[in-house]
Amino acid sequence: MIRIVKNNIRAYELAKEQKEISISEFFTKNRHLLGFDNPVRALLTTIKELVDNSLDACDEMKVLPDIMVQISSVSENRYRVVVEDNGPGIVKQQIPNIFAKLLYGSKFFKLRQSRGQQGIGVSASVLYGQLTTGKSAKIISKIDPKKPAHYYGLHIDTARNEPEILKEEVVKWDKDHGTKVEIELEGNYKFGARYIESYLKQTAMVNPHLKLIYIDPEKKKKTFSRAVSELPTEPKAIKPHPHGIELGILMNMLKNTKARTIQSFLTNDFCRVGSKTAKNICDMAKINTNARPKRIARQEADNLLQAIKKTKLIAPPTDCLSPIGSSLLEKGLKKEVNAEFFTAITRPPSVYRGMPFQIEAAIAYGGDLDKEGNVKVMRFANKVPLLYQQGACAITKSIQQTKWRSYGLQQSGNNIPVGPAMIVVHIASVWVPFTSESKEAIAHYPEIIKEVKLALQECGRQLSRYIRRKIRSKEQKERVNLFEKYIPEIAISLSNISGISRIKIENDLNKILKKNTNQIIKEGEI
Amino acid sequence: MIRIVKNNIRAYELAKEQKEISISEFFTKNRHLLGFDNPVRALLTTIKELVDNSLDACDEMKVLPDIMVQISSVSENRYRVVVEDNGPGIVKQQIPNIFAKLLYGSKFFKLRQSRGQQGIGVSASVLYGQLTTGKSAKIISKIDPKKPAHYYGLHIDTARNEPEILKEEVVKWDKDHGTKVEIELEGNYKFGARYIESYLKQTAMVNPHLKLIYIDPEKKKKTFSRAVSELPTEPKAIKPHPHGIELGILMNMLKNTKARTIQSFLTNDFCRVGSKTAKNICDMAKINTNARPKRIARQEADNLLQAIKKTKLIAPPTDCLSPIGSSLLEKGLKKEVNAEFFTAITRPPSVYRGMPFQIEAAIAYGGDLDKEGNVKVMRFANKVPLLYQQGACAITKSIQQTKWRSYGLQQSGNNIPVGPAMIVVHIASVWVPFTSESKEAIAHYPEIIKEVKLALQECGRQLSRYIRRKIRSKEQKERVNLFEKYIPEIAISLSNISGISRIKIENDLNKILKKNTNQIIKEGEI
Repeated sequence: MIRIVKNNIRAYELAKEQKEISISEFFTKNRHLLGFDNPVRALLTTIKELVDNSLDACDEMKVLPDIMVQISSVSENRYRVVVEDNGPGIVKQQIPNIFAKLLYGSKFFKLRQSRGQQGIGVSASVLYGQLTTGKSAKIISKIDPKKPAHYYGLHIDTARNEPEILKEEVVKWDKDHGTKVEIELEGNYKFGARYIESYLKQTAMVNPHLKLIYIDPEKKKKTFSRAVSELPTEPKAIKPHPHGIELGILMNMLKNTKARTIQSFLTNDFCRVGSKTAKNICDMAKINTNARPKRIARQEADNLLQAIKKTKLIAPPTDCLSPIGSSLLEKGLKKEVNAEFFTAITRPPSVYRGMPFQIEAAIAYGGDLDKEGNVKVMRFANKVPLLYQQGACAITKSIQQTKWRSYGLQQSGNNIPVGPAMIVVHIASVWVPFTSESKEAIAHYPEIIKEVKLALQECGRQLSRYIRRKIRSKEQKERVNLFEKYIPEIAISLSNISGISRIKIENDLNKILKKNTNQIIKEGEI
Repeated sequence: MIRIVKNNIRAYELAKEQKEISISEFFTKNRHLLGFDNPVRALLTTIKELVDNSLDACDEMKVLPDIMVQISSVSENRYRVVVEDNGPGIVKQQIPNIFAKLLYGSKFFKLRQSRGQQGIGVSASVLYGQLTTGKSAKIISKIDPKKPAHYYGLHIDTARNEPEILKEEVVKWDKDHGTKVEIELEGNYKFGARYIESYLKQTAMVNPHLKLIYIDPEKKKKTFSRAVSELPTEPKAIKPHPHGIELGILMNMLKNTKARTIQSFLTNDFCRVGSKTAKNICDMAKINTNARPKRIARQEADNLLQAIKKTKLIAPPTDCLSPIGSSLLEKGLKKEVNAEFFTAITRPPSVYRGMPFQIEAAIAYGGDLDKEGNVKVMRFANKVPLLYQQGACAITKSIQQTKWRSYGLQQSGNNIPVGPAMIVVHIASVWVPFTSESKEAIAHYPEIIKEVKLALQECGRQLSRYIRRKIRSKEQKERVNLFEKYIPEIAISLSNISGISRIKIENDLNKILKKNTNQIIKEGEI
C-alpha cells in the first residue's frame, strides 16, 4: 500500500515541476549554440549578426550598402558595438520584435537566398549583451527622410521571450533612412581583433558593392571601399518544389491552403507543377482533381506524396539564388592574396531536399602563399564568411575527400592538402543547412558534398594544368641552359669533322636554341 | 521623390513579412540539429530519446527500471517504435504537453544530473514521426494500480507549438504504473541496426541496474539482464552557485525572488552563501543588507556581482551528481570487451560556469582488442552513450591532447592513439554543455578538457605500469629460457673444473632457475 501511495504522489509532484521553457531561457543556458561560447567569439558574433542584417536590409531595398562598424572600450572586458546602415529602416511597431524577441523575422518563411534565415541572430546578440552587462540595446531607425527617426531602449523578457521596452522616443537623425544598433557586451578584443578583421575583410571580398568603415577601440579607422557599383542580382522568392516535401508538411499545406481544389493546390502552392502534371499526379494517387484540399485524409495525402515522388519534374527555378560569380570571386581573391595563378568557377545550381543551392569555388596558387603548411581554406555561405568550426563543415570534408595529388598538391590520406595554395568555397542557397544556430559549419548533406567536390575538381584541373606547364617549362629551360653550355665544345667537334667554320656553327646553334626557347617561354606563360 | 516613396513602401512591405516563428517550425526546417539528419540516425535518435526518458522516470521514482524496446517494420522505410517502462507514469493533464510540445519539461529548471535536460527530445521524435508518416504518437500512461490508464493520440500543431489531441480515452492496462509510447517514423533499420545495438549495449553497461528487453523487426528478442539490484545514488537538486552567475541572470533573480532583503536573497537563493558571507558581499558592494531585492538597480546589481566574484566561496555541493563509480565502470567494461588489463577511476567533482561536473575514465588493454587500428573510444554523458559527432567532442580533443607514448601506446602528432586499447570517458553534470540539441558532442570548455585529461593521465599511468611489467617479464622469461638451454653444457664445464658430479650441478642450477622464474612470473601477474 505504501508503495502505491508513494508512486501516485511522485507522478503528481513531477507534474508540478513540468512547465514550458521559453526559447530565450533555453538559449540563455545554451548560448554556445548561438556562437557565444566565450568573450572572443561573442564579440565577433555580435558584429557578424549586425553587419549581415544590414547587408540583407540594403539588398532588400536595392541600395548600395554604406555600413559603419565601431567598437569602443567601456571598461576591462566590456565593449560597445555600434553598427549603422543606410537600409530601408524598420517600421516603428516592429523594432521591439525584430531586436528583442528570438525567432522573429521576415526571412524564415521565404524561399530566397539571404544572409539571415532564422530570426535568431540579432536578438541573440541583444540577449547576450543584456546577460553580461545588464544594459539595454539601443536602436535608432528611420524609414523616410520626411518622417522622424524612432529610438528604442530594449531588453528581452526571457521568461516570456517578449520585448521589454525601457525607453521609446522620437529623435532627430541626420540620415534619410537606415538603422543604427548599439549593444554593450562582455568581450575580448585583444584576442578577438584578428577574427573581426578577417570577417570584415572577407565580407568585403565577396560583397564588392559594399562600402564599409571600421573604427576599432583605439579609434583607428579603416575603410573597405566599394569595388563595383552595380547591385548584385536580386534573388527572387520561389514556391516550394514538390520533391522536397514530406508528408507532414504536405498535410499542413493542405490544411492551410487557400486553393479550393487539389488541382489548383498543386499548381498554385508549388513551383514546377503545370495543370497537366497536376492531373497526372491526382490520377496516379486516385484522387479527384476537384477534391477539397482540407478534406484530404492522411492516407490520401500519403498516396498523393507517393505519386509526386514518382512524377518527373523540372528542377526548381534558380532565380532565388544570387551567386557571387566566378569573375568577381577571382577579382576578390586577387585583392586578398598575392599569388601567381588564380582560377574560379560557378557550378550550375543543384537541389537538396527540394532546396536549390549553388556552389562556387576558387583556387590561388604560388606567389606569397606559404609553401610548407596546410592549404588555406576560406568558406562562405550566402556571401557570409564562416570563421569557426572548420572541422565540422561539409566544405572541409569535401576538400579532404578530393584527390589533390593528381592536381599537383601534396596530401597524406584524407587530410587537408599541403602546399602554396588557398581554396575558396561559397555555397548559395535558399536555406543553408547549418550544423548549429551559430551558423559556422554546413551539415553533411551528400548532395552538397558532391557539388563542392565537382567544383574543386574543376578548379583542380586548371591548377594541375598550370603546375604541369610550370614544371615542364622549368625542365625545358634547364635543358636549354645545359645545351647552351656545351655549344662551344660541340661547335669545335663539328668544325673538325665538317671543316665548316667553328664560329658559324656556334652562331647557327645559338639561333636554333633561341628560337626554341622563346617558344618554350611562350607556352609556359599561358 | 520616387526614391523616398519607394523606400517608405519597402519598409512597410517588409513589416508585413516580419512574424513570429514557432519553435516547432524552426526545428521542422532544422531537424538535423535534433539528430534527425537521415533515416538511419532518426531511428536511433527516437529510441534513444524514449529510453533515456524512461530511465530518468524510473530513477525519479526510485524503482529498478524494466524497459521494453520494440521496433517493427510497417512498410519499406517505415518503422513503428514502441518503448514501455515501469516508471511513475505521467499525470493525465500533462501527457499532451510532455509529448507534443517542444521546450516543455521538468528538468530544465533543476540543477540536478539527469539524462534529459532540455524538454526537446521526446517531442522532437513525435514531430519527426508526424513529419515523415503523418501518423500520431500513441501514449498510454498509468500512475496508480487503483486508477485507470489514459490513452492519447497526439499531433503537434507546429504553427503554435501546441499539442493537438486526436484521440483521448480511458483504457485498461495490465500494469501497476508506467508509460508506453508508440511512434511511427521513416527510418532505415538495415544500416541503423548496429547503431541501435551499440546504444542499447552501452546503455546497459553504464546502467547495471537496468533490465532491458529488445525486440528487433525480425522479432528476435534480446535481453540485457540486471547486473546489480541496488539503485544508483539519487542526485539531489542544488541551488545555483554564485560564481556561475552572470549579471543578466542576477538581475532576473533579484526581480523574481521571494526574499525580502538582499541578505536573505543571497543566503536563500544560492548555495554556499552563509549569513556572514552575505554581509561581507553587501558591504563590499556598498549595499544595505536590508535593501529590497526588487529595488536594486542595474549599477548596484553590477557592484553586487563584482563583490561576489571577489569573494572566496566553497565549491558547489556535489550530491547533485550521480557518477557510475569506478568499480561498476570497470565491471561494465569487462562485460563488454575481452581484454587482459582493466583500470577505471572517478575524479573528484569540479566546476565550470558554476555548474558541478565529474569525470570518470576507464581503459581496457590487450586480449581480443585490435592491435593495428586506432584505439576504440566510448563516450558517455550522464550515463547516456554518445555515438555520433566524435570529432566535435571535447572528450575526443582531450584524448588527442594526451601524450600516450609515455603510457605505452603509439601516437602520431595530436591524433587518436593506436594500439590494442579501449578508452571510456563519462561526464556527469547538472548541465552537460552539448554542441547541439542532438546531444552527441560536448562543447570545448577548458575546465572540462582539463579534467578529462587528468582522468586519462591517471588511467594512463596504471596502463604504462602494466605494459612495462609485461615487457620486463617477457624479457626475463626469454633470458630464463636461454639460460635453461645452456644448463647441461655449463654443468659439464663446472663438473670438469670442480670435480663435482655433473648431475648434481645440473639439478642445483635448475632449482635456482625455477625459484627465480616463479618470482618473475609472480611479479608479471600483479
